[in-house]
Amino acid sequence: MTLHAAYDPDNIFAKILRGDMPSLKVFEDDVALAFMDVFPQSEGHTLVIPKGIQARNFLDIPPDYLGSYMLRVQRIAKAVEWGLKPDGLRVMQFNGASAGQTVFHLHFHVIPAWDGKELGRHGTGTMAKPEELEPIAAKIRAAV
Amino acid sequence: MTLHAAYDPDNIFAKILRGDMPSLKVFEDDVALAFMDVFPQSEGHTLVIPKGIQARNFLDIPPDYLGSYMLRVQRIAKAVEWGLKPDGLRVMQFNGASAGQTVFHLHFHVIPAWDGKELGRHGTGTMAKPEELEPIAAKIRAAV
Repeated sequence: MTLHAAYDPDNIFAKILRGDMPSLKVFEDDVALAFMDVFPQSEGHTLVIPKGIQARNFLDIPPDYLGSYMLRVQRIAKAVEWGLKPDGLRVMQFNGASAGQTVFHLHFHVIPAWDGKELGRHGTGTMAKPEELEPIAAKIRAAV
Repeated sequence: MTLHAAYDPDNIFAKILRGDMPSLKVFEDDVALAFMDVFPQSEGHTLVIPKGIQARNFLDIPPDYLGSYMLRVQRIAKAVEWGLKPDGLRVMQFNGASAGQTVFHLHFHVIPAWDGKELGRHGTGTMAKPEELEPIAAKIRAAV
């Protein structure tokens, strides 16, 4: 069952953490890294991942690490809200391929909701270009 | 903007916390209450709400309370997984009506994913009967 498989250190977010893959970062400290989702479900779709621990999902994360990590998720949610002023904000996290998880390093999605715009599908569609995402990332970065 | 409105103490989850509305509880302590969603998007759909604070959404919750609350969310996610053995698990939280929030007291959804079954729509459809939900609640309660 994929919910309880071993952590694969070659997943794409581990590569981003190691600097082996590029990402458009909006925040980083010792606990977490936040960056733009390259398949955004809406404008401003941001991911927050823990650093320094090998957690595939929300069930895996050690309880003594959870609070520090969730403070970063909240901080990014506030920054997305302050920086972009969306009409609403979804905070979502998927465990297991059956639930829609596509990268097996724990991540929380912070997804702005815009009135009159439907959400795109998760992890599909056309990859956004860095030059399209950077002006959005800059607004979030300034609000963190 | 609904993301920053005042807390309404007559929302339905506040009534559940006061005992003025019934709910099928699976867990309760000083920090949080967990109970079955009566409009389940899948079998085992459970809600976790904070107690003792007036937070409309994830942006509102005081940082010094966030860690304790999220530990309860994780505990319930684990209990739903252990008790029901779904194929996956979604953890979702909506801020503002535009994002799909329907009750304005902070709540995290823990929603099992079952292979071959689509998720139902949020907060709509037919209300589940207590006698349908109770056997599911009993399995989660036993696993908390």
